[in-house]
Amino acid sequence: MSDKDVKNSYERSAKRMQGKSQADKTIGSQLSNKDYNDPELHGDIHNDLKIDYNDFEKSPSMEELHKWQREHIQKDDQGKDGYPMNVIIDPAMREMYQVVNKAEMTNVFDRFSEQQPIQCKFCVEGLSCQLCANGPCRIHPKAPRGTCGVDAHTMVARNFMYRHVTIGTSANIFHAQQAARTLKAAGKHPESGLKIRDPEKLKKYAEMAGLDSSKSIEEVAVDFANWVIDDIHSPYHIESKAVEAFAPAKRKELWRKLGLFPGGGYSEVAYSQTQCMTNFNSDPIEFLLRSVRLGVANEYQGLFLLDILQEILMGTQEITEKKQNMGLLDENMINVVTNGHMPLLAHVAIDLASSDEWQQKAKDAGAKGIQILGHVCEGQQLMNYEGTHNQKGYGGQEGEWLSQEYLLATGVVDMFMFDYNCTVPTMPLFAKKFGTKLLSTHPVIKLQGTETLDFVPEKMKEQAEKALNKAIESFKERKGSNRETYIPPHTSDCTVGFSTESVKEALGGDFKPLIDQIANGNIKGIATIVGCTTARYGQGGSNIFKITKGLIENDILVLSGGCTSAVMEYTGLTNPKAAEECGEGLKAVCKQLGIPPVLSYGACVDIGKMTQTAKEIADTLEVDTNKLPLVIGAPEYLEQKAVADACTAVALGWLVHVAPVPSITGSDVVVKTLTETTETLGLGKVVVEMDAEKTVQIYVDHIEKKRKELGL
Amino acid sequence: MSDKDVKNSYERSAKRMQGKSQADKTIGSQLSNKDYNDPELHGDIHNDLKIDYNDFEKSPSMEELHKWQREHIQKDDQGKDGYPMNVIIDPAMREMYQVVNKAEMTNVFDRFSEQQPIQCKFCVEGLSCQLCANGPCRIHPKAPRGTCGVDAHTMVARNFMYRHVTIGTSANIFHAQQAARTLKAAGKHPESGLKIRDPEKLKKYAEMAGLDSSKSIEEVAVDFANWVIDDIHSPYHIESKAVEAFAPAKRKELWRKLGLFPGGGYSEVAYSQTQCMTNFNSDPIEFLLRSVRLGVANEYQGLFLLDILQEILMGTQEITEKKQNMGLLDENMINVVTNGHMPLLAHVAIDLASSDEWQQKAKDAGAKGIQILGHVCEGQQLMNYEGTHNQKGYGGQEGEWLSQEYLLATGVVDMFMFDYNCTVPTMPLFAKKFGTKLLSTHPVIKLQGTETLDFVPEKMKEQAEKALNKAIESFKERKGSNRETYIPPHTSDCTVGFSTESVKEALGGDFKPLIDQIANGNIKGIATIVGCTTARYGQGGSNIFKITKGLIENDILVLSGGCTSAVMEYTGLTNPKAAEECGEGLKAVCKQLGIPPVLSYGACVDIGKMTQTAKEIADTLEVDTNKLPLVIGAPEYLEQKAVADACTAVALGWLVHVAPVPSITGSDVVVKTLTETTETLGLGKVVVEMDAEKTVQIYVDHIEKKRKELGL
Repeated sequence: MSDKDVKNSYERSAKRMQGKSQADKTIGSQLSNKDYNDPELHGDIHNDLKIDYNDFEKSPSMEELHKWQREHIQKDDQGKDGYPMNVIIDPAMREMYQVVNKAEMTNVFDRFSEQQPIQCKFCVEGLSCQLCANGPCRIHPKAPRGTCGVDAHTMVARNFMYRHVTIGTSANIFHAQQAARTLKAAGKHPESGLKIRDPEKLKKYAEMAGLDSSKSIEEVAVDFANWVIDDIHSPYHIESKAVEAFAPAKRKELWRKLGLFPGGGYSEVAYSQTQCMTNFNSDPIEFLLRSVRLGVANEYQGLFLLDILQEILMGTQEITEKKQNMGLLDENMINVVTNGHMPLLAHVAIDLASSDEWQQKAKDAGAKGIQILGHVCEGQQLMNYEGTHNQKGYGGQEGEWLSQEYLLATGVVDMFMFDYNCTVPTMPLFAKKFGTKLLSTHPVIKLQGTETLDFVPEKMKEQAEKALNKAIESFKERKGSNRETYIPPHTSDCTVGFSTESVKEALGGDFKPLIDQIANGNIKGIATIVGCTTARYGQGGSNIFKITKGLIENDILVLSGGCTSAVMEYTGLTNPKAAEECGEGLKAVCKQLGIPPVLSYGACVDIGKMTQTAKEIADTLEVDTNKLPLVIGAPEYLEQKAVADACTAVALGWLVHVAPVPSITGSDVVVKTLTETTETLGLGKVVVEMDAEKTVQIYVDHIEKKRKELGL
Repeated sequence: MSDKDVKNSYERSAKRMQGKSQADKTIGSQLSNKDYNDPELHGDIHNDLKIDYNDFEKSPSMEELHKWQREHIQKDDQGKDGYPMNVIIDPAMREMYQVVNKAEMTNVFDRFSEQQPIQCKFCVEGLSCQLCANGPCRIHPKAPRGTCGVDAHTMVARNFMYRHVTIGTSANIFHAQQAARTLKAAGKHPESGLKIRDPEKLKKYAEMAGLDSSKSIEEVAVDFANWVIDDIHSPYHIESKAVEAFAPAKRKELWRKLGLFPGGGYSEVAYSQTQCMTNFNSDPIEFLLRSVRLGVANEYQGLFLLDILQEILMGTQEITEKKQNMGLLDENMINVVTNGHMPLLAHVAIDLASSDEWQQKAKDAGAKGIQILGHVCEGQQLMNYEGTHNQKGYGGQEGEWLSQEYLLATGVVDMFMFDYNCTVPTMPLFAKKFGTKLLSTHPVIKLQGTETLDFVPEKMKEQAEKALNKAIESFKERKGSNRETYIPPHTSDCTVGFSTESVKEALGGDFKPLIDQIANGNIKGIATIVGCTTARYGQGGSNIFKITKGLIENDILVLSGGCTSAVMEYTGLTNPKAAEECGEGLKAVCKQLGIPPVLSYGACVDIGKMTQTAKEIADTLEVDTNKLPLVIGAPEYLEQKAVADACTAVALGWLVHVAPVPSITGSDVVVKTLTETTETLGLGKVVVEMDAEKTVQIYVDHIEKKRKELGL
């Protein structure tokens, strides 16, 4: 770049500034017309709206919709024409997409289309490096190395680690840290509104951690929280106590042998980040094995711990019937939607909103009442926890991450609270357009021009009251403005609340009956269908649906967690009626137990519960975890936590199916290591497959192979 | 990407594998002919070599060379023709480049040229995101947002944080952690060969940390090391004790006010990585201020601490005369080169190599003796520490990071040990070609197919013996093979060993005399010229040289640290004779004190010492650090530690000049925040300028402005 280029670049920047002087102010000025055509609040975009119900004259029933989804999927109309209407199988999102698209507002599906013509092949394959000032460098036949000398393998493996694995691992461990701080506050500060809802679970895990569980429950809470925080923050070269306490014995042996037994998770992340420096580690295998080591920390200092901590606070999951989708919104209620993965403050708010006092406040403001609905994984968690099951302030689950812009476009969301990912950067645009109050409940996530609460678990009650008062004000403004709204009338009936404990209880107290069904072949094996949904490859939920349908037809029991759970819910797969769609063996089991063939474990972070279920089944069978007839699938994985979770699954010895294709195809060494070599070490491996039918066959074959190895 | 594309991609990968079955083995097979034309060891590439000495008939003297460098720079022949010969001003590298280039071996300058036609404008400007599976996304006028909704500002700021700041901060804190572990071993394990060379410094800083310094020095060492390790590993929400103990009082006040006072560094890194998740934080200002917060941790839990710890172990810097460059290699000596930034094991090896016992072992192997030379920053550190000054096993400083491939091409490096960055990924190719034994001394850095020692400070003597024995074997093989070698005959005489303490001592015990010279205008101010050298923009040291020359002509005293120190050395600027090139004021001061106008503080990590010097000067003046007539310059910054260090300088309130242009120009908000807004908050700011002459003027103007503010 010449000096002239630099100057031009600055001039372009200056031009973009359009004379604004304050950086913070300027952000607002960046919103293009495309983002936000109508600067007026409460625009009349719902007027004259003619929703395309496809094959229906009017809004269809739940049963009609589920039937339509199945016919639609069978047509396999995933072509370019009509995109994305032909791939949105969530009926509510399908309607609201039309609202937003017709209003020419920016939205996730249209943005994905915009990006397509220019996606960079180098970046797609992991062959571009932007780490140092000699770069960016791209690897191609005429330039087989970057300026520093890095080859394709090191570049791809390093990109994989620092762009995905360290970020995802940090996020899950950070989540556990916040949950531990909250448990500590619950023990020390009753005025926080926090409760210890599952003291038995707390005692059980405190004992496993080697702590004295005979103290008062509040003291045990503080001790256990401190134990967790200390372990997360211990040096990388001192073995993690959490891994020692909770991981399967045979796995620990293998990890020690391979150098994959981690120390404190944050120190591990810093170690790995250090290795990603320019001209530092240049052994691709080292990056990949260290990613697996981070996968162990990701599980036992992240997912597993945060699940336990949240259940102690909000109540272990309990099987129950719930409803899902945008039809739960009510124009005459104060609708608060809470988004994210860490419903710590939100749960205190639900406690409050369930009180007569706060329902009365809502009525005084002219509403029928106040309800708090969960979106994304937070919605899945809240739907499952015993602590929300009989709360009148809790309104149900709203949808997956792709639908949040469309959700706000209903015009009836009075407040959108968020505590963690996934909250998309365009929320402020939609909030402004549709009169929603935005509120971050942790400074780790800030949106442009949006209010953020500090994270103070000791003062959560006070903060929750503040949040609810803001929601009431927002409702009054909505009603005062008389603006147009539209709520898609769809809801699904779901059976939810599955977890290690609730499944075991349903089976009569242990996993023996399930193992018997696996042994007799009624259930061939188990697949977890977890993670996100993507706009990529024309999926938006359809790949998840097609694969799951194929698996249950082959008598494979499915556990879901993450936005996949929303897909299972809005397609009826978490409804016991779905037993009719299974193979004969699984159908019989489902009918006998009155359960659906897809057991929703809840959120993506509830993968920690699934690994625990798998561990207990392996223990009952007296085998190592990698012997189980089990496949881990993330058929529409999106972000970095999913990649870290895949590393966890590899550490535990499992086959992990991922789609879309991760950005590692630029290196055969990296591809081969992750898809073949790791298995030879006793670890799991990754398989990449885009076609749903082929994917089902891969799962079936792997489960059959594992059954044979077990002598079944 | 269609399924067919995916298949093709896999087929390409499979083809690249060429039938190899083991991933580890495959790496070797990837080396293209271009990398390594002649698979035979000890090729005769030095035969018939006609070195181009430019304007000389034969190899010139040091004085002739320094004169030639100045004339060459004045010609400003930085054009495209003859690249890169016309920009390599290190005479040794200049010769060896010809050797390597004529042999058609891959090398850093030629690789940089290869990359130029295809550098990606999106990546150059920070407008490409590869974080999630919906991407990669690129921002341009027709697609102003990524699929998730991210805008240019968030994308650029997030890339800046996770690609640069968190990696650099991790690396510096990791370094301090290893040094602390080593000090602990020195206290507990005398058999480790580790020594506590500056017990007074240890006591002083232990007292500042609030520890009991009246214990035995070994106990104080263990206590201080534990204190450091604990602080690094404390949670982000508990204020760092190291920052509290060592940072300037007025800065701490400001940082608290702005929310920039960090907790434990690793927890801070994990917090920041968490924010970089897809659909997480989308406020660009938050990313930038958090980068400054990481800059505080980078200094007081990284640079500053690691400097103290290494000086306690290896002896505080002492002003002395030393030699630099490849002419120090000796064909008949066993030549061990130690590379990196963390000479912990290397220093124990120098202790051993300085003993009659090990010199005799070398003689028994047919050598004149054994010498350990330092390369890159490690070489700068070893040259400066009091603990190496009279060690006969220590051979001097070799060069900057760009020269390491050329260094091995001499054919006389028997062992190349490395402990940290900067070790380029092609070292295994050069080692194989030229018969060098490679040895990593910390598993955090592994090269393909290369031996790695575990990091066990308690056993460093044993490990150092192992390393030296391997070097002796390697020498025997070299002599046995009778292969051709070539050593460029250049060395520079340098005055080195500057630091807070040694400068103060030279001034008679305090900074008053220096302040008087600043007050009377003989010295206008101070500039630090620190960091790396790059192959970018035809620099390779020349931008550093030109700027420094301009600064001393304007009576600005220069402190150097990093590969910039090597440039100062091989261009004669650390020689007291360079006083003749200064303005009249600085010339008089240099002559009076017998010092050069560039004071080498050593390595890039020795920036921690410079900030301490600045703090003590500010304390003497009773002003905040941002009031000093001081500019921080990184005129050829390369990697992530340099970016973290720039964040440190912004935190301390200083003007930071960087070149080349960082990849942030895609966002006017980010550019404006870092180059303007931060200063309005009482922080420093960044200035980007590529032209050396304009750069000098920027420094002069800023120093003049600060002088005026101080009433000078």
